[in-house]
Amino acid sequence: MPENNEHENPASIRGKTVDDISRRRALTEKITGADLKKIGSFSISPESASKNIENMIGTIQIPVGIAGPLKIKGEYTDGEYYVPLATTEGALVASVNRGMRIIGLSGGARTMVLQDNMTRAPGFRTGSITEARALVRWVEEHYGEVKEKAEATTSHGKLLKIDPFVVGRHVFLRFYFFTGEAMGMNIVTIASEAASNLIAEKTGATLVTMSGNMCVDKKPSAMNLILGRGKHVQAEVVIPETVVAEKLHTTPSKIVDVSYIKNFLGSARSGALGFNAQYANIVAATFLATGQDAAHVVEGSAGITTVEMTKSGDLYVAVSLPSLPVGTVGGGTHVDTQREALNIMGCFGKNSAKKLAEIIGGAVLAGEISLMGAQAAGDLGKAHKSLGR
Amino acid sequence: MPENNEHENPASIRGKTVDDISRRRALTEKITGADLKKIGSFSISPESASKNIENMIGTIQIPVGIAGPLKIKGEYTDGEYYVPLATTEGALVASVNRGMRIIGLSGGARTMVLQDNMTRAPGFRTGSITEARALVRWVEEHYGEVKEKAEATTSHGKLLKIDPFVVGRHVFLRFYFFTGEAMGMNIVTIASEAASNLIAEKTGATLVTMSGNMCVDKKPSAMNLILGRGKHVQAEVVIPETVVAEKLHTTPSKIVDVSYIKNFLGSARSGALGFNAQYANIVAATFLATGQDAAHVVEGSAGITTVEMTKSGDLYVAVSLPSLPVGTVGGGTHVDTQREALNIMGCFGKNSAKKLAEIIGGAVLAGEISLMGAQAAGDLGKAHKSLGR
Amino acid sequence: MPENNEHENPASIRGKTVDDISRRRALTEKITGADLKKIGSFSISPESASKNIENMIGTIQIPVGIAGPLKIKGEYTDGEYYVPLATTEGALVASVNRGMRIIGLSGGARTMVLQDNMTRAPGFRTGSITEARALVRWVEEHYGEVKEKAEATTSHGKLLKIDPFVVGRHVFLRFYFFTGEAMGMNIVTIASEAASNLIAEKTGATLVTMSGNMCVDKKPSAMNLILGRGKHVQAEVVIPETVVAEKLHTTPSKIVDVSYIKNFLGSARSGALGFNAQYANIVAATFLATGQDAAHVVEGSAGITTVEMTKSGDLYVAVSLPSLPVGTVGGGTHVDTQREALNIMGCFGKNSAKKLAEIIGGAVLAGEISLMGAQAAGDLGKAHKSLGR
Amino acid sequence: MPENNEHENPASIRGKTVDDISRRRALTEKITGADLKKIGSFSISPESASKNIENMIGTIQIPVGIAGPLKIKGEYTDGEYYVPLATTEGALVASVNRGMRIIGLSGGARTMVLQDNMTRAPGFRTGSITEARALVRWVEEHYGEVKEKAEATTSHGKLLKIDPFVVGRHVFLRFYFFTGEAMGMNIVTIASEAASNLIAEKTGATLVTMSGNMCVDKKPSAMNLILGRGKHVQAEVVIPETVVAEKLHTTPSKIVDVSYIKNFLGSARSGALGFNAQYANIVAATFLATGQDAAHVVEGSAGITTVEMTKSGDLYVAVSLPSLPVGTVGGGTHVDTQREALNIMGCFGKNSAKKLAEIIGGAVLAGEISLMGAQAAGDLGKAHKSLGR
Repeated sequence: MPENNEHENPASIRGKTVDDISRRRALTEKITGADLKKIGSFSISPESASKNIENMIGTIQIPVGIAGPLKIKGEYTDGEYYVPLATTEGALVASVNRGMRIIGLSGGARTMVLQDNMTRAPGFRTGSITEARALVRWVEEHYGEVKEKAEATTSHGKLLKIDPFVVGRHVFLRFYFFTGEAMGMNIVTIASEAASNLIAEKTGATLVTMSGNMCVDKKPSAMNLILGRGKHVQAEVVIPETVVAEKLHTTPSKIVDVSYIKNFLGSARSGALGFNAQYANIVAATFLATGQDAAHVVEGSAGITTVEMTKSGDLYVAVSLPSLPVGTVGGGTHVDTQREALNIMGCFGKNSAKKLAEIIGGAVLAGEISLMGAQAAGDLGKAHKSLGR
Repeated sequence: MPENNEHENPASIRGKTVDDISRRRALTEKITGADLKKIGSFSISPESASKNIENMIGTIQIPVGIAGPLKIKGEYTDGEYYVPLATTEGALVASVNRGMRIIGLSGGARTMVLQDNMTRAPGFRTGSITEARALVRWVEEHYGEVKEKAEATTSHGKLLKIDPFVVGRHVFLRFYFFTGEAMGMNIVTIASEAASNLIAEKTGATLVTMSGNMCVDKKPSAMNLILGRGKHVQAEVVIPETVVAEKLHTTPSKIVDVSYIKNFLGSARSGALGFNAQYANIVAATFLATGQDAAHVVEGSAGITTVEMTKSGDLYVAVSLPSLPVGTVGGGTHVDTQREALNIMGCFGKNSAKKLAEIIGGAVLAGEISLMGAQAAGDLGKAHKSLGR
Repeated sequence: MPENNEHENPASIRGKTVDDISRRRALTEKITGADLKKIGSFSISPESASKNIENMIGTIQIPVGIAGPLKIKGEYTDGEYYVPLATTEGALVASVNRGMRIIGLSGGARTMVLQDNMTRAPGFRTGSITEARALVRWVEEHYGEVKEKAEATTSHGKLLKIDPFVVGRHVFLRFYFFTGEAMGMNIVTIASEAASNLIAEKTGATLVTMSGNMCVDKKPSAMNLILGRGKHVQAEVVIPETVVAEKLHTTPSKIVDVSYIKNFLGSARSGALGFNAQYANIVAATFLATGQDAAHVVEGSAGITTVEMTKSGDLYVAVSLPSLPVGTVGGGTHVDTQREALNIMGCFGKNSAKKLAEIIGGAVLAGEISLMGAQAAGDLGKAHKSLGR
Repeated sequence: MPENNEHENPASIRGKTVDDISRRRALTEKITGADLKKIGSFSISPESASKNIENMIGTIQIPVGIAGPLKIKGEYTDGEYYVPLATTEGALVASVNRGMRIIGLSGGARTMVLQDNMTRAPGFRTGSITEARALVRWVEEHYGEVKEKAEATTSHGKLLKIDPFVVGRHVFLRFYFFTGEAMGMNIVTIASEAASNLIAEKTGATLVTMSGNMCVDKKPSAMNLILGRGKHVQAEVVIPETVVAEKLHTTPSKIVDVSYIKNFLGSARSGALGFNAQYANIVAATFLATGQDAAHVVEGSAGITTVEMTKSGDLYVAVSLPSLPVGTVGGGTHVDTQREALNIMGCFGKNSAKKLAEIIGGAVLAGEISLMGAQAAGDLGKAHKSLGR
């Protein structure tokens, strides 16, 4: 009868003060017998995380290592950056760091953000395929009205476009917003809901779900690979053949082979949406460090690495991440340690979200170079053994 | 000239002591101008994380909330569990907690692990399609020898089988191991490498890449959805119609509609591999809390939720996650705070990895119920607004 | 030494007259020992097929059955149609015919074409990600010029838009054309090539391939499922519960179950892009009858069937084929027998391509109803046995 | 009131004699006003097609061209073959023929069938995830009994294995049969149904659908790309650099580029399951000529072409079609013209299905070489223009 014993349930204690946290943790310890001293000993202020958690009992600490300098030049980056990586996968920081050194020895990488938006796709049910088409037409004809309704809910979000998708008598409307320095899911959900209620009201359709899985939020999808979501980030570098030889102990041609067989043949045959070596590792480590939504690693794992020989025999490597959702305000970015991590890279203020995206793009590039180089040199197992990965 | 100024580069400082960490952090602060006091103030012992990180400068703290009790019965679970969730997504803990309460009011959920293995798929190049087939046959005929070679590298890993995939003159061998309480990537990589070297030597093939992306590690893939990787976890519950009405303020039929339109129509049309509402959120939060590899959220986001009306008008909900890679030893599970989180659920000792998988399955089920219920009741935007999600 | 014995090679005989065909066939008979009398005895005039084949030796005859009447109402259809189906799969015509009878008993189906275009996507290589973005911008800024160049090659094709996709330093431009009554691949290839040569010349990029597999022509792809190609056709019908009972010997609820388990659960778990029962069968049979490109069955097999109970307990069924490439001029539509088949449905003149698409949509709907009904009634194996399918 | 006017409906006339066909056609002409003289003038005997069609009114004639000789050596082929291609796509026969000439000048191609089976996957519903697992275990423990039941229905089919897939409380059982010279869908459906009825009876599960879309029959799917269905065919050739220069007017390196950018980058970014240039065209043309099921072009369009430079600068090309369903008995193979087409290649008797599969593999290889060569030489548009494609 849990309803009658709520004092026995730590999850039933409300409140966000340090005292609330302590009581909740103490009760958890009492019930489960677990000692939670380390979880309970944290340096962030609960206030900084008050919007990020309920039923807080403390913090999980993820070790953070520093990699760099990462020399990149993009639209919002130009210089050498140190990149904090929060991970528990041994060898990962060393691997990325090695890749950054190689990028540096190659004169630095070029980075860019090709596209920048956040999406939400509510799903409507109408009475027939005719009504479904009518809904789409209504939206096209009243786009201004819909935009106004959506944008009235937010000071930062700007509606960019709406893509309609009809399945039988159902309609999915994929709303695209520019959301400034915020990753923007929150903004977009609220703005799309206002617009969707208007559409439902005017067309008589039923708004069945505010998130119709054509957003696509946190599920692997061809949609996001094809059309993008969040930032579409690219980064590239040309690595001189001599650097490949000296630092990676292999040849450009062998790395091209690894890329071809691993990233294309293997991914193709396995029905994969990621044609890359390890985007997810670097995306996860930078996302955790900087307060991004860890579940968005799903989107960030999709993308295509291209590895090519140049005419002069050097190695061209580029990464292309069409759906990297990142921000520098909102979400977990205000938690004290995450804010510090953002500060390491100077990621605050105008255009800092794009700056962060470019830096992550460069770090992902470093990770690809290092891992493919290790595989080409036959070192994968060895690295795992010696560095305890 | 970074090579000459290595003392200026925090990433060049070696060593894993608290002093090394402090020096590295101080240097990072000096170079970047960032104040890293909070990152530098942590309660875990660097020793507990020594195999998990290089170039450590401190820790990122992720707030952890407690949800529960989660009442489940499975092969390795039987009772009420409190589940730690590390996240910065506001409303998530509250949402999961609500789902758990509904599960409790419904008499609890049933959980199970259908399959349990870890995979690695090296890629070989041979000289022709004839040689490719010969390689496959050699492996079939010498399976015992290959198994012996692989298992000689590990005290825990047991080779279960090898699936061959031929693409032109290339061969991918997908090794499946049972790895006990460890998630097992490390074990499997080393064991597969030993076996692969033997195969390359005996057949004359070139081992191009130890990880040929048919593993498939940390990339979204139909392969893992179809064949599974890690634990295949399932959980189910029947929620009485009255509980749906009172606690979710909606009807079973409306939730069935949300599932149909969102999880099936929307996911189908977007070419998604996740036919669910929010697996990734709960997988990420439990993975971070318990020291799993955050990049494995990619695998964990794939899967299929089934929502059906029972004959008596109640609501049947099941989750099916075919590729959930989790362990209770190795990786980040030994970091102090993560170990404490595992202790909350009693996840140590024999079969604890399966126990953990079942608990995560139950938590994922709770998340599905709560989010689909909120969407059916038209509450998604509201929840985000009031809880700051 | 085949080069020296070209008179011995039937494939080396040029010419398109009946005599050329006979000589070629006779030589084939001589060399292979096969009797080709039936292949050699045909009723079409070689002139009607002169642009459709090289090295002709005769014809393959595919039996054609008639199904109908199909009662439909759409934008370009209104009435009862008889549909020719060319197939060698026993039971298929009977199955479709049964579905049409049920549609008729339900008052007819509604059909529509939601979208109508043909695409081609050349692939360019540039020197860097910066140049790739510059190419995209050049196209945006010179859209009028590009459009003019493309349309100068055709009297029927109108460029609708260009979607750019960047992968590293490569750019794919997906050209969308309206092509009137023609399916349009030919028109689109030539027009896109003219435009692409202009773009390559002006930007300095290399046009590597005129068809960069983002068209996507004749490969299964999420792209076409999501964005469409050719006609996006929909058709729907509400079948009274009594008709389901009397004619399909089952219940609406059982058919909903078949659709859910087969078309959604099964297709989801197998990583399929077709969430339907048998689109490909009906698409193939109508395509063969009417001179469409048989390889386009690949595109036509993708799509989503929705089966739902209405509030009054009847059965709502809709089909959604986002990528059905069809035409009534060009290609095989001028071959005598295929032209006759088009005439059966009155598919000639203005808007006849859309009319044909709507009729095929209705026939596909009939096929879905019949097959799902048979499976719900447990008759699949029986039908195959008795009708020799 | 169609029921009362059945004499007015050609689809209501039963019977398979020439006279029935004539009456049906005459009535169709009368109702629709279409002249069906050419459709009505055919050389096949209706008896040869009696199991392939209902409501026959005549035949559609597809022009067939001859390509060859195709020089190949495999397990069931050794020599020079002429390949009939039924198509209405201008330039296709010429293109394939050119590819075959290049194969011949390169000393011939190597072909093989790696795997050979036909599948069917019924879908069951049970009461719970526990019952779902119990069903799987029952099948494992009673495999002999299940096999006996299945094989009792057929003299040719041999059950090879059953792969279970569990989704919540639903179970899909993928049955794999060897079906000799038949493509085997029919055999497999009937045999699986017998086995499924036994399983349903013994376990109490409901057999919801005999074809649960995990077969996967005629829908594009990662399942078939990964696990195969029908024959897994491969073919390869090494083309000397001089032949590439003289006959394709390009270089090996340029063709490698086309393959990389088109077949890998383009297909990857579009979420495609076909990493090839034009498998579907050749599969369709050979399938139509030889009486295969045209809807199976869907399966045949999936697969991976590998194009690589050899150390000596020559061009290695291989095709890999994991799911090519073909047979030489049953289905449309007995229609007179189709039988003649099979005779051209000597495809009758023991192992002729595999022989046919190898020949198609070689023809597909020819098509890839020719099309990629044309694109590398910049000739695609030109070919379409001059040959009327």
